[in-house]
Amino acid sequence: MSVSPSTGSKMESKQQYILDKSFELVLRKGFSGLGLQEILKHADIPKGSFYHYFPSKEAFFCVLLQDYMKNYQERLVNIWSSDANGKTKILDYFRRWISDENLPNGWAESCLIIKLAAEVTDLSESMRLILQEGVISIIKEITQLIEQGIEDNSIVTQGDSEAVAQTIYQIWVGAALMSKISKDKRPLHQALETTENLLNHSIKGHLS
Amino acid sequence: MSVSPSTGSKMESKQQYILDKSFELVLRKGFSGLGLQEILKHADIPKGSFYHYFPSKEAFFCVLLQDYMKNYQERLVNIWSSDANGKTKILDYFRRWISDENLPNGWAESCLIIKLAAEVTDLSESMRLILQEGVISIIKEITQLIEQGIEDNSIVTQGDSEAVAQTIYQIWVGAALMSKISKDKRPLHQALETTENLLNHSIKGHLS
Repeated sequence: MSVSPSTGSKMESKQQYILDKSFELVLRKGFSGLGLQEILKHADIPKGSFYHYFPSKEAFFCVLLQDYMKNYQERLVNIWSSDANGKTKILDYFRRWISDENLPNGWAESCLIIKLAAEVTDLSESMRLILQEGVISIIKEITQLIEQGIEDNSIVTQGDSEAVAQTIYQIWVGAALMSKISKDKRPLHQALETTENLLNHSIKGHLS
Repeated sequence: MSVSPSTGSKMESKQQYILDKSFELVLRKGFSGLGLQEILKHADIPKGSFYHYFPSKEAFFCVLLQDYMKNYQERLVNIWSSDANGKTKILDYFRRWISDENLPNGWAESCLIIKLAAEVTDLSESMRLILQEGVISIIKEITQLIEQGIEDNSIVTQGDSEAVAQTIYQIWVGAALMSKISKDKRPLHQALETTENLLNHSIKGHLS
């Protein structure tokens, strides 16, 4: 007996199709700049069908962001599941912000956190909370890798691992925004150099 | 004989009035999220009058950004015209990102570069270029202050002053975005600490 997909999984698969088809549009146009009509046209679905899967454009963006964060976590698990030391894993992750064979423009260019944060945090508390949860989780994982790196002697920092992780993540977010403004990847390469220096030593002053 | 303002200056003053009235709206809603009708209503002007001063919404945003950058430069001149040493001037500037008596929420919260960059750089080459020019100019001024600080012995860095200035600016841009996501100022306070450490010493590793 063949097993046909349940209504639930059919619904999920159609929902996922709309999310996947819209990703590039969102990445280019953001939240307010992307009209519902454009989403419908691009995914080739009628309005009624969209509202069957998502109660509103904001709800659609919330699911899209949650899906993005889930996918991001899976990518992290993949690159961090190697036997490499803590420092190598962190640098491997951030090098992919610049370029990645599976993501030709690199993670920075394809990052919904960077694309949407400034726009949507003032417009939607639901979207802000999803972004906040995603960022907390990324920083937590970097913190754990720093701790791993201190243990395996690949990383030397002074001070709190979480603070170093937050600083590194901030540098990359800033670099990604600078890279969008200048349309070149030099800010990202510089962030990589700064990150290497931060992991070789602390940024604490020589007096501390 | 009383001298009435020329047509040119009347035009400029009305244009400035529309820009000033719209600033808070832009800061909250961004580019695509802010409709022309809302600008007209808020500034209490008819559509024809708006188009008399600005050929399009994009042109209006370009003038708004240019005006913002001009005003930003004036603010920099004010805080950097003191006799303080280079390090004090840089820290004074960044402390204002957190809070400033003239700008209750601080410069980070009121920054159009941070609010608009991710949204508009993909939508408008004209706006991107104004942002790029503004950022280059801010980083150039930070570079000069670092050089002043090295000369007056208030700053110790290893390596290129411009690279340090770029890194510091990136950290603050990233921190400002993190601060929007988390709705608290801790990322900015951490950026201040990182900046102080960067100016006390280099972030170069102990092996370099």
